[in-house]
Amino acid sequence: MALIGPSLMCADMANLQDSVLRLDQAGVDFFHIDVMDGKFVPNFTLGPDLIKRIREFTNKPFDVHLMVEKPEDYLNLFIESGADMISVHAEATYHLQRTLQTIKDQGLKAGVAINPATPIHDIEYVLDVVNYITVMTVNPGFAGQKFVPLMNGKLRDLTSLINECGYKIDIQVDGNIGYETIPNVLKNGANMLVCGTSSLFKQDLSLEGAVAKLKGFIQELEINKV
Amino acid sequence: MALIGPSLMCADMANLQDSVLRLDQAGVDFFHIDVMDGKFVPNFTLGPDLIKRIREFTNKPFDVHLMVEKPEDYLNLFIESGADMISVHAEATYHLQRTLQTIKDQGLKAGVAINPATPIHDIEYVLDVVNYITVMTVNPGFAGQKFVPLMNGKLRDLTSLINECGYKIDIQVDGNIGYETIPNVLKNGANMLVCGTSSLFKQDLSLEGAVAKLKGFIQELEINKV
Amino acid sequence: MALIGPSLMCADMANLQDSVLRLDQAGVDFFHIDVMDGKFVPNFTLGPDLIKRIREFTNKPFDVHLMVEKPEDYLNLFIESGADMISVHAEATYHLQRTLQTIKDQGLKAGVAINPATPIHDIEYVLDVVNYITVMTVNPGFAGQKFVPLMNGKLRDLTSLINECGYKIDIQVDGNIGYETIPNVLKNGANMLVCGTSSLFKQDLSLEGAVAKLKGFIQELEINKV
Amino acid sequence: MALIGPSLMCADMANLQDSVLRLDQAGVDFFHIDVMDGKFVPNFTLGPDLIKRIREFTNKPFDVHLMVEKPEDYLNLFIESGADMISVHAEATYHLQRTLQTIKDQGLKAGVAINPATPIHDIEYVLDVVNYITVMTVNPGFAGQKFVPLMNGKLRDLTSLINECGYKIDIQVDGNIGYETIPNVLKNGANMLVCGTSSLFKQDLSLEGAVAKLKGFIQELEINKV
Amino acid sequence: MALIGPSLMCADMANLQDSVLRLDQAGVDFFHIDVMDGKFVPNFTLGPDLIKRIREFTNKPFDVHLMVEKPEDYLNLFIESGADMISVHAEATYHLQRTLQTIKDQGLKAGVAINPATPIHDIEYVLDVVNYITVMTVNPGFAGQKFVPLMNGKLRDLTSLINECGYKIDIQVDGNIGYETIPNVLKNGANMLVCGTSSLFKQDLSLEGAVAKLKGFIQELEINKV
Amino acid sequence: MALIGPSLMCADMANLQDSVLRLDQAGVDFFHIDVMDGKFVPNFTLGPDLIKRIREFTNKPFDVHLMVEKPEDYLNLFIESGADMISVHAEATYHLQRTLQTIKDQGLKAGVAINPATPIHDIEYVLDVVNYITVMTVNPGFAGQKFVPLMNGKLRDLTSLINECGYKIDIQVDGNIGYETIPNVLKNGANMLVCGTSSLFKQDLSLEGAVAKLKGFIQELEINKV
Repeated sequence: MALIGPSLMCADMANLQDSVLRLDQAGVDFFHIDVMDGKFVPNFTLGPDLIKRIREFTNKPFDVHLMVEKPEDYLNLFIESGADMISVHAEATYHLQRTLQTIKDQGLKAGVAINPATPIHDIEYVLDVVNYITVMTVNPGFAGQKFVPLMNGKLRDLTSLINECGYKIDIQVDGNIGYETIPNVLKNGANMLVCGTSSLFKQDLSLEGAVAKLKGFIQELEINKV
Repeated sequence: MALIGPSLMCADMANLQDSVLRLDQAGVDFFHIDVMDGKFVPNFTLGPDLIKRIREFTNKPFDVHLMVEKPEDYLNLFIESGADMISVHAEATYHLQRTLQTIKDQGLKAGVAINPATPIHDIEYVLDVVNYITVMTVNPGFAGQKFVPLMNGKLRDLTSLINECGYKIDIQVDGNIGYETIPNVLKNGANMLVCGTSSLFKQDLSLEGAVAKLKGFIQELEINKV
Repeated sequence: MALIGPSLMCADMANLQDSVLRLDQAGVDFFHIDVMDGKFVPNFTLGPDLIKRIREFTNKPFDVHLMVEKPEDYLNLFIESGADMISVHAEATYHLQRTLQTIKDQGLKAGVAINPATPIHDIEYVLDVVNYITVMTVNPGFAGQKFVPLMNGKLRDLTSLINECGYKIDIQVDGNIGYETIPNVLKNGANMLVCGTSSLFKQDLSLEGAVAKLKGFIQELEINKV
Repeated sequence: MALIGPSLMCADMANLQDSVLRLDQAGVDFFHIDVMDGKFVPNFTLGPDLIKRIREFTNKPFDVHLMVEKPEDYLNLFIESGADMISVHAEATYHLQRTLQTIKDQGLKAGVAINPATPIHDIEYVLDVVNYITVMTVNPGFAGQKFVPLMNGKLRDLTSLINECGYKIDIQVDGNIGYETIPNVLKNGANMLVCGTSSLFKQDLSLEGAVAKLKGFIQELEINKV
Repeated sequence: MALIGPSLMCADMANLQDSVLRLDQAGVDFFHIDVMDGKFVPNFTLGPDLIKRIREFTNKPFDVHLMVEKPEDYLNLFIESGADMISVHAEATYHLQRTLQTIKDQGLKAGVAINPATPIHDIEYVLDVVNYITVMTVNPGFAGQKFVPLMNGKLRDLTSLINECGYKIDIQVDGNIGYETIPNVLKNGANMLVCGTSSLFKQDLSLEGAVAKLKGFIQELEINKV
Repeated sequence: MALIGPSLMCADMANLQDSVLRLDQAGVDFFHIDVMDGKFVPNFTLGPDLIKRIREFTNKPFDVHLMVEKPEDYLNLFIESGADMISVHAEATYHLQRTLQTIKDQGLKAGVAINPATPIHDIEYVLDVVNYITVMTVNPGFAGQKFVPLMNGKLRDLTSLINECGYKIDIQVDGNIGYETIPNVLKNGANMLVCGTSSLFKQDLSLEGAVAKLKGFIQELEINKV
């Protein structure tokens, strides 16, 4: 079944211990943690000290999404803070292969993230080294944006490309992933959902309720698919 | 009496609501909030969404310290998130006067921060526009560093310069401010203390206890001075 | 019929009011306005104040071609100065989709420009959001350069790609567009011609004469095509 | 008598031939030409082709003010377009001495420009190589800004420094130079006035009238000074 | 037969005259010279003065591999120092076509280098202007790295692309080229081998012996191929 | 007596083993090694592998002069290659104090280099952490340039500043240091001479002869001073 991971920047940032513990208990599969440098994206979120702190409350994988220029310069900072998976942007480094290889050599899962406009051909020569691909389904930098329609086609093409090549790579989607968009992204091959304000963090639902509802929704979709 | 402001990046980042409420109650004078871009300093901390969230729990001034390149590009982000004071680094912008003026024109207090190696002459032509000067007493970017010895001389010279010119400017010190360093920085003219792991955030003291002890210490010093 | 737009940087820059009025009267379809930052291209041309000024003399569309790094930072400057269309370079931004969407959301036509070496696959995921594509047929930055031969093949492939996908997108060509190159670029799908020293701005012809001659030439070609 | 130079970016950019001819006739002493790269300052104005074109209409000195990063990379572009004087910003290059020396070695006058926040000590080791110093009296990048009050003190200190050292250097002021600010800048040592919307380019005066009025005003001030 | 070129950075840098003379005599076909800027790759190697000096000892072609950002800014430096061939990275410039054309216009052979992650489609519109393509078979910046496995597929695809288009372009491989990797790279179309510590510079062989052994090995492979 | 150190970039780069051995024997005091990144200075010279190699031939101190942006990112590269002293440019880093402290903490001597235009006040707050100051007496980046005249005054002022503060800091001069300039730089306080084409590397003298002549010259000057 598709894995779900709450986007930490959408959680109650003033009470993260509580949110992380409850999300862990409620059965999320991983935690998605966005790091921003104000350059690659025009915003700032959180850093390694915060990650190290919440590392104390859960054993679920920490998926650190580096929305930063030259991510290779910051890998150690995040590996030491407790990351299990790190994704870097294809657009942000001259040395994508080396950066991904370095992440894997340290025992983590390596992911490559691509912005909405980035073609999938840009990552074809790192498919043997990545564990997962993060398809940005909104433009990165801010919560609450709208799904970019062509991303469904991109997911379909990416799934085909991976299958043709015979690789085993997870496809993560990040951005406006909710009840309206999930059916299509799953159909097109995504199997890791980054969940923010469109699904898990809602005014009218507890975190536990939101996780349960989302998992039920996904299960239903997957049963019907068969 | 010298004002004290906890450095938020040293607080329990997993339970900020609790920390902020308790620090507010315990009588801190302002909250010091460090923002980093990985370029001006090689680290990341927190961003505007987190500031907006904790804004709900206190009315004390938020002092946002932008350790970022081209801070002028990010002022709105932090003004909208609830900052009352913003300091920018003299080393980080071509347009220091305009940046400071812009902060003031928006109704905030404007501060200029200077790294340990930066001479005070670099800020002499913005003294009429700043409300406070942040003298970095460690090299910025990380908690737990050692006070740079020459900074006491810098504080003394800065105090003289300000007095000679007849300005009313607060002098903030940031970095390794604790029981060993406070007597000297106060003597040399500092009147705003950014308090981190050297004073407020200690294993063996409650937040309330730490604030009370620190305020007592400062009061004693100031009484004796007279 | 293919639209023609004079390149303003090739006009008599000392008498732009006159040139703009006469070109408007002579029946050009749009004005192409190049902006350079010395970084994306090693030259400088003109800016928003000049655009705002000539905006007073014509209602024809202003097509602002931003040959600048991080064009997203400058959109407002040019929207406020009177641009009707803005094109940005695919090579110049991490966030092509967002930048183009922002232009459209402001009610302008959005264009993506690609340098001679840039493959058309680099823009396949923004085809749904662009109104026009500017194929640079010389290397940008200077007037008077030679048409890059492979660009005819690129135009042909681009036309096929657009047609396959069923989009309605204009194809603009920019660089050494004159009587020798026009037959081929039209045949390969271009329908917006940026006209500079190779066609409209010539020593031996008035602006009126040059426009008339060029329009006649294009009309002839298009009649014969049928 | 103090020299006056119209700022070209404030002239009627749609009819520069006319403006330049009339200003030349009316007796301005030089033309001040601002070049911007969108990086050093967040705006764009004009470039070398335009300068080359208006070079045809006057023999008065062209004073090109490079508000660009790494100005050393662009010197040839402007020398070839007809500049007689080039000023570069002290804040914009690692190699201020070499850049200024290069300008002089080409037979031009070399100027160093300093932003409002920049201390005069930053240029003390290039005083032997500069012909003029441009004191920015507003923050550069836009017309119509307000005079920064401390700049009168800076002019006074700069004049003292130059006199002490025994150099013969012109002091240019740039920004909001008009009837209210001229008396003080002249008193403090400025002898080259960059004239924009605050003095020469006004709705209610012809260019000729504005030049005459301004020269009369300055003459009066200088007579009274004696 | 495939050409072999020693990588100068792997030679005895303390005795280059001797190494160059002996390699020349031993029959290498060209000298491969890596230049690094610490930005495009995180290392430094050598510069134009060194190239000029060793130019005195051989007439074999000097193939200068610019692993630098904005290589267009440094072409003259290396052309004047004696380069016969210059390769620039597709990832390092906005203006790949112009940069390559400039190299050719100066009478040198022009090469485009691509990092392991870079797809071959990124260079399809410069195939008419390049004399050779350098496929990086390791991540650039350091000696002694491991061959990236997917590069054999990339060579095969590149060879097909070139043949389809009918171009005559040499394919150079650079990185961990030795007895284990040569059979495959030759089979997949490479015909210029950059030889470093994996083939020519070995503890247990003289330079002459290493060249002879390598040439024998290649000859054998090519005979068997027929 | 003043120390002399040959500038390696001026030696016979094709036979460095021989040059280093002979210079060592001839009694030079240290080796000065320039590293350039093409950004801080528009040239390239040599890197860590070359330093490591020549480290085998002498025990004299290696003084590595980093003419690179953000030198803090490259310290390890040069410490591991055998540097005994590292100087970084005050103009090239936001974090001068930390960078110098890091060099010292690794057991090396720390130096700060300043370009001709840089005022000595820019380094007053690192005087307690530096072992030597490199006053650039030409603009850095190329051999064979002319001594900048004001540098004698800068040396004098720097010597006064150091003496007033009571520090023990060596003053190194770098650039066009020869028989014409040495008397003055010594008189003004320099005690470490970087020797290039103006003194040690001359057509008409052996290395041994050049060192002997230079040492004799300096000795004579110093005797006469007493």
